[in-house]
Amino acid sequence: MMPPRGAVGSCRRRRLAPLNEDNGRFLLLAALIAAYLSAGATVFSALESPSEAAAQLRWNRTLHNFSRIFNISLPELRAFLRSYEAAMAAGIRVDALRPRWDFPGAFYFVGTVVSTIGFGMTTPATVAGKVFLIVYGLFGCAGTILFFNLFLERIISLLAFIMKACYERQLRRSGLLPPNFRRGPAVSGVGSLVGWKPSVYHVMLILGIFAIALSCCASAMYTAVEGWNYVDSLYYCFVTFSTIGFGDLVSNQNAVYQHQGLYRFGNFMFILMGVCCIYSLFNVISIVIKQILNWVLKKFECRCCPKCRKSSTRLSRRNAITPGARLRRHNVAMDADGQYDSDTEGRRLSGEMISMRELTASSKVSLAILQKQLSETANGYPRNVCINTRQNGFSAGVGSLAIMNNRLAETSDSR
Amino acid sequence: MMPPRGAVGSCRRRRLAPLNEDNGRFLLLAALIAAYLSAGATVFSALESPSEAAAQLRWNRTLHNFSRIFNISLPELRAFLRSYEAAMAAGIRVDALRPRWDFPGAFYFVGTVVSTIGFGMTTPATVAGKVFLIVYGLFGCAGTILFFNLFLERIISLLAFIMKACYERQLRRSGLLPPNFRRGPAVSGVGSLVGWKPSVYHVMLILGIFAIALSCCASAMYTAVEGWNYVDSLYYCFVTFSTIGFGDLVSNQNAVYQHQGLYRFGNFMFILMGVCCIYSLFNVISIVIKQILNWVLKKFECRCCPKCRKSSTRLSRRNAITPGARLRRHNVAMDADGQYDSDTEGRRLSGEMISMRELTASSKVSLAILQKQLSETANGYPRNVCINTRQNGFSAGVGSLAIMNNRLAETSDSR
Repeated sequence: MMPPRGAVGSCRRRRLAPLNEDNGRFLLLAALIAAYLSAGATVFSALESPSEAAAQLRWNRTLHNFSRIFNISLPELRAFLRSYEAAMAAGIRVDALRPRWDFPGAFYFVGTVVSTIGFGMTTPATVAGKVFLIVYGLFGCAGTILFFNLFLERIISLLAFIMKACYERQLRRSGLLPPNFRRGPAVSGVGSLVGWKPSVYHVMLILGIFAIALSCCASAMYTAVEGWNYVDSLYYCFVTFSTIGFGDLVSNQNAVYQHQGLYRFGNFMFILMGVCCIYSLFNVISIVIKQILNWVLKKFECRCCPKCRKSSTRLSRRNAITPGARLRRHNVAMDADGQYDSDTEGRRLSGEMISMRELTASSKVSLAILQKQLSETANGYPRNVCINTRQNGFSAGVGSLAIMNNRLAETSDSR
Repeated sequence: MMPPRGAVGSCRRRRLAPLNEDNGRFLLLAALIAAYLSAGATVFSALESPSEAAAQLRWNRTLHNFSRIFNISLPELRAFLRSYEAAMAAGIRVDALRPRWDFPGAFYFVGTVVSTIGFGMTTPATVAGKVFLIVYGLFGCAGTILFFNLFLERIISLLAFIMKACYERQLRRSGLLPPNFRRGPAVSGVGSLVGWKPSVYHVMLILGIFAIALSCCASAMYTAVEGWNYVDSLYYCFVTFSTIGFGDLVSNQNAVYQHQGLYRFGNFMFILMGVCCIYSLFNVISIVIKQILNWVLKKFECRCCPKCRKSSTRLSRRNAITPGARLRRHNVAMDADGQYDSDTEGRRLSGEMISMRELTASSKVSLAILQKQLSETANGYPRNVCINTRQNGFSAGVGSLAIMNNRLAETSDSR
């Protein structure tokens, strides 16, 4: 393979800068997670160690008492308990549980598989079951990830629609928007809400409130039906909805309930809605975390690199978390620079503007040449690509699916 | 709120079409998942029911034998077993396990929380621990989702880079590419690889092979150290890497191992790499599932709607899964239509082309007017928005983060 040289070489250097920034962000996040884990481990260790010691003491006393009273040697008792452990692994408990592998039980099990909750209250014991699980889970989990992502897309669309309507109404009431306002091409200045997008903080707030309301309702149900205390129910809701699924508390496991059918339906609906809602909330929070990472990177890394400063200043206008920025953007009149709009199109536009500006050299702008030029810009010819790469980075997004959406042939046009 | 009328009204109708398609895809996926769950439940029920019955029988025999031999009444024995269940919930087993809540144990625990594996081998028992878990997990899981997404981004970038180099080399060997090929602006025709992207199927294949290789290596380690059989180890690897985390098998739980430090490190690295790899694989598979959904929708829904047929034919050129299409695209010479490139820029471009075409009415194309026109296109003024919406749909992607990336103000420019 021959390495490309000349113009392409300088382009590659320019291309490496954002790549290093991406790697930097990735490593920074990894370091922060490691620190977060260490801090969490310390806190949990402090909180739970006494309880663990007490439980160990309590169990030892029970074991020795039982051994003494019934005159059973400890090794015999241990062998018995080992066989009980094996029985528990097959889903057997002292107090009768629902059957593990009848159809509703198996349905609950596969539900915990594809959602990756994985309580473990039921697990396959046969070799055939384990092998089938691997194949089944592979496609099931992938399908469910797609489902969650499509749900996320739907809920964000819905929230954006509602919030836009509210914002428009608010603007109209305060007189900032003319009463005969339309989103037509005639209105080009103040109050054009076509490009308006809700703030990630507002979406996070709404999703958070919804998640809390849902958890509280679900907990009320679990407290009433399962007999857990309310904190345990809330803890169960979080552990389930976040798909952690420890399995220390599992709903709907007793053999008999009052209103069994109703409870099963309620349990299913709460888990489905909860998982979708918390997945969306996690993704929204992760965007905020990413903004914080960007802010930290900008703060600390660009001090070492004076060359970046200019472009970072440019970026700071876009990335900075300034609550009023969105409103101000909409109040200023349109300018040809296209920077007041903060969406990806706006950024791509500025790249195209530059290619357009180069055309001023020729006095007559032929439409054919213009189309060719634009087509070259869009197809990423080096000169323009470098500009785009530096400014856009991942203009097509950083999401799980969308990363591939711009990087893979088949996904570019798929919806 | 006044409903917009006239031109905007017709635009809204046009806008509704893709929205309905999105809802249709979402519902189709939900129905398919429900069918998949039912089928899975049936298979698991058939596979595991006999084993469950046998285990129940075995346990009953053990229980009654033990009761008879040591002359203990069943209620007394049940009370004892209930107290053992309570002890097990606190992480106590007959055979000594590692301490649950020392620092390494707590670190393992928080690792299973933020990754949403949630084995449940250790769970908080105190109220304070449970409340802290909710707060801790909320940000921990969000951070880890971001980490997985950034990893996905890195791995796809890396794979694309490697595959592009291989493809270039292959082209050069077969003589399709001139030996003095450069990605400079001078080369505008055959063999320009700048817009080249790897196929999702190739990426899926590579990730799949890597995941299998990783699982096999990890299983070999677990088989040797934990004493599980190989199928159990493979099953454990899948359950862990997919973050299902039943907890029926958990690595690194014994009190003492040979080469403890080395095993802990190996266990950590395998789980980290496995989880990242399987997460990426799931996302790639979910894109393929989405393509299948699109294909199904196109096949069945557009028959009912003759109006859609024209646009669907247009889409079929892009979405159809035709293995040779990519190669053919690169072999044809550049054309001004810009359709040979399948990425989002290509599609946005065609939207801009239309707005440009409208400009042919005016003989002199002033750069200022052109910029304004483009800026309007980019900012989504109704006439052009409708065209873009119909053609692009979610041109900015459907990924977890990227959905918001184009829909929220702060995320549009964040990286």
